Amino acid sequence: MAEGTTFSGPADPRFFTRAGPFDAATLAETAGAELVLPKAGAVPEEGFVGIAPLQAAGPRDVSFLDNRRYAPLLEQTKAGLVIVAPAFADKVPAGCAALVTGTPYLAWSRVARLFHPRVPARAGVHPSACIDPTASIDPTAEIGPFVVVGAKAEIGPGCIIGSHAVVGDGVQLAQDCRIGSHVTLSHAVLGERVIILPGSRIGQDGFGFAVGPQGFETVPQLGRVVLENDVEIGANSTIDRGSVNDTVIGAGSRLDNLVQIGHNARLGRCCIVVSQAGISGSTVLEDYVTIAAQAGLIGHIRIGAKARIGAQCGVMSDIEGGADVIGSPAMPFREFFRNVAVLRKLAKKASGSAKNGSDKG
Amino acid sequence: MAEGTTFSGPADPRFFTRAGPFDAATLAETAGAELVLPKAGAVPEEGFVGIAPLQAAGPRDVSFLDNRRYAPLLEQTKAGLVIVAPAFADKVPAGCAALVTGTPYLAWSRVARLFHPRVPARAGVHPSACIDPTASIDPTAEIGPFVVVGAKAEIGPGCIIGSHAVVGDGVQLAQDCRIGSHVTLSHAVLGERVIILPGSRIGQDGFGFAVGPQGFETVPQLGRVVLENDVEIGANSTIDRGSVNDTVIGAGSRLDNLVQIGHNARLGRCCIVVSQAGISGSTVLEDYVTIAAQAGLIGHIRIGAKARIGAQCGVMSDIEGGADVIGSPAMPFREFFRNVAVLRKLAKKASGSAKNGSDKG
Amino acid sequence: MAEGTTFSGPADPRFFTRAGPFDAATLAETAGAELVLPKAGAVPEEGFVGIAPLQAAGPRDVSFLDNRRYAPLLEQTKAGLVIVAPAFADKVPAGCAALVTGTPYLAWSRVARLFHPRVPARAGVHPSACIDPTASIDPTAEIGPFVVVGAKAEIGPGCIIGSHAVVGDGVQLAQDCRIGSHVTLSHAVLGERVIILPGSRIGQDGFGFAVGPQGFETVPQLGRVVLENDVEIGANSTIDRGSVNDTVIGAGSRLDNLVQIGHNARLGRCCIVVSQAGISGSTVLEDYVTIAAQAGLIGHIRIGAKARIGAQCGVMSDIEGGADVIGSPAMPFREFFRNVAVLRKLAKKASGSAKNGSDKG
Repeated sequence: MAEGTTFSGPADPRFFTRAGPFDAATLAETAGAELVLPKAGAVPEEGFVGIAPLQAAGPRDVSFLDNRRYAPLLEQTKAGLVIVAPAFADKVPAGCAALVTGTPYLAWSRVARLFHPRVPARAGVHPSACIDPTASIDPTAEIGPFVVVGAKAEIGPGCIIGSHAVVGDGVQLAQDCRIGSHVTLSHAVLGERVIILPGSRIGQDGFGFAVGPQGFETVPQLGRVVLENDVEIGANSTIDRGSVNDTVIGAGSRLDNLVQIGHNARLGRCCIVVSQAGISGSTVLEDYVTIAAQAGLIGHIRIGAKARIGAQCGVMSDIEGGADVIGSPAMPFREFFRNVAVLRKLAKKASGSAKNGSDKG
Repeated sequence: MAEGTTFSGPADPRFFTRAGPFDAATLAETAGAELVLPKAGAVPEEGFVGIAPLQAAGPRDVSFLDNRRYAPLLEQTKAGLVIVAPAFADKVPAGCAALVTGTPYLAWSRVARLFHPRVPARAGVHPSACIDPTASIDPTAEIGPFVVVGAKAEIGPGCIIGSHAVVGDGVQLAQDCRIGSHVTLSHAVLGERVIILPGSRIGQDGFGFAVGPQGFETVPQLGRVVLENDVEIGANSTIDRGSVNDTVIGAGSRLDNLVQIGHNARLGRCCIVVSQAGISGSTVLEDYVTIAAQAGLIGHIRIGAKARIGAQCGVMSDIEGGADVIGSPAMPFREFFRNVAVLRKLAKKASGSAKNGSDKG
Repeated sequence: MAEGTTFSGPADPRFFTRAGPFDAATLAETAGAELVLPKAGAVPEEGFVGIAPLQAAGPRDVSFLDNRRYAPLLEQTKAGLVIVAPAFADKVPAGCAALVTGTPYLAWSRVARLFHPRVPARAGVHPSACIDPTASIDPTAEIGPFVVVGAKAEIGPGCIIGSHAVVGDGVQLAQDCRIGSHVTLSHAVLGERVIILPGSRIGQDGFGFAVGPQGFETVPQLGRVVLENDVEIGANSTIDRGSVNDTVIGAGSRLDNLVQIGHNARLGRCCIVVSQAGISGSTVLEDYVTIAAQAGLIGHIRIGAKARIGAQCGVMSDIEGGADVIGSPAMPFREFFRNVAVLRKLAKKASGSAKNGSDKG
């Protein structure tokens, strides 16, 4: 490795701009937290200049504790200000101020955003972009190099379209969407503040064909993709358009990288789909469903609100709202781990020996 | 969500052109179906104007019933014409004509295509494309913006090459291929009517390396990818070229999104590989094999003709022709579900309680 | 299939250039092998012209045997020179010379590379590329069509940047990197000789959000991606940048296609991650870990050096160095297959019948 690149700590100035400094009161307000002054000393008058992890932070940095496993680092931190839950407030070192809140991760997120705000759209169309004369692009939108915008497409105020992205004929984007490099959008309607990371494919033909006398015949895919407000899609994911109805991703839902959504699937509000999971055609997720990594759902089923589907789970039938399932086929968490334990016991007994009885997996 | 986008029903005119109207006789011929006139009334003289799902169709729309679970919608439909299997012919409402056929889904597909034909190639090379002077491009082919065509590549009549696609040095496409945006083709030979959706990668180096004294050493990958006639590949899939032999996808086979095909794999005719499935290097599929979503096959095995590999199945050895397997490791469907049931029973007994006895997964 | 494309054997001249001929002594030196002259006849004076598989090779071709299952082909080969392990030296046909070595696959790799050397960078920036004036590009680097290079990015000597690739603001590449078409690099620092195949996404936002009163709120992702020397990444893979710390891929590691690496993950030296596997955020792999296809690792765990994670394995906790695990949840190989066998036996007994007793899966 190039030895000169041993930058440590977040927000390498090569890549990130930085706002500030900010004083403790401003940070407390941003965090929605109670400011507790240090037992010894005072907060720096010149304000805080950035964020850093507990072990790397200095007296003018803000840090945070979110995960109980990192609690030992708290007592040794040299951070000037630390965001913590009430349970850890008395573990904050004497020289360190605290921002105490019941939602430390959210507070941290907002403080980090204050120091590192999103770069706004740089209004204008790059001269290399290929824009159909019938497309409508708001003058405040930013259109990057080598972008293609098709006939009658509409791009709203404040949108950022990354380089090489394709906005197909008729596609609509409401305001403040951020479309990553190399994204393909076709047959799609996007709400406000939709974010798509590089390389995702939205709106292509679903996987539909009929068996004909000479082989498979493609069934025309005549629906759309609708991405509601505040949807975020990771990198290299694929969302097929509907065949007859639309494929819909509900407001506020978040999809990770390499996720597959089949035609006519419908996700409710604030669903989470983690990387490499797949949802087959015409399956419905109600609101607040979580699908963990590499899980797969067959088509034409319904997942009730707030259900949680575990990693690698294989879901072959409807799941009730609020259920916690895992395994392939899916079963309740408790049952799955009971089965695992019972089978291990039976297998040991059958082999008449406990010599393989330990594992760390 | 932008509230103005509540278009419902298929074929939003923003995205789809529409042919027609067509009279019932033409539709019957296209469908290869028997026309049954309505018990009450007649078919509209002006013909039918489009297709729609049962619950949304009007008197001048064609609809269809394919899935038994939607049968209740048939009796209430206001469609003027409906495509059904013989078993449902007497459930068609009195005012509605029927197209009766043993293959309603195929008939539907053809009728939908009649109303919404594929857009033909718009002959010509976009001025922004970067074409090697030694490449050969048929004058009837359509080459989109920012396409790169390499040295001695050959693109046949009627092909459509989407924006930003790369047709590498020497790559050959026979007639009427459709290559999506951002597709990368290298070391590849394509038959006629091959379709590749956006972002798929065809022909890159396979995953081959030898252990050398200083670490891994890449083994040169000296084969090709051959996509035979009528192959279709989904979005963001990856097909590595062969190391010594070719990687071959047989005529008429269909691959979905995010599928991985390793080097030297050979698929027969009319195989189906559903999304996120992976086939390791040098594995052979005979004809008409189906691989369901997220299944994985190790390398150097053979799957017999018409075998069906279930979702998330892990295949570690040869599978006989016609077999139906699932599970990881793969086993016959019947055995898999028997195992699941037996384990559940044993686990309940072992826990001495039936309190966890119900699940919907 | 186009019938004219029945080229057989490796290194189709449409796609591959060829060096040579080379004499047996040169090949022996390249292979690091002992040359054994044919029992009958001599090696061709004009040297050898290429490589070919055993069944296709002729008297001026070099072939090899690596996999025991192909041993019967050795005795029938018409190759003039064959690379074999000592155990097979006496099976080489009488007219054929041999290169005998304990590492035949490595020797083969080097001989194949001798005939088909990597194409070096063609120095220069394609006129269609879009280069920020503050970027620094070594004059020996090759920058392809439609490439975008951002502000203050640095591209080292001998690098090849494929068409449509994006090298984001501030990204650094040391010498001799090869970046495929359509790759996106952002917030990333690359060592020497890093190879990335087409369509991979490096450095985008990780999947991090906090639950706010109005829905999810994105947590700023303020780390980087560091790819150390000799890392190779397949096609359409995704490596998210760190949230606070960096995501690091250790020197010499190899990732296949469609692999997902979450934010803050750290891989040691010479790790292998096969296609469609996923590693969740903040998980650590020590050196020489192998992750087979479609395996998944949850976040915040540690995998010890030289551990091997089987295909489709679901890893939910730390794994000791050197362990061999498989299954979901992960367990030792031996235990997994014992469980499979015991369950099958119990299920047969429970069903009171052996009629389903045979499978090939």
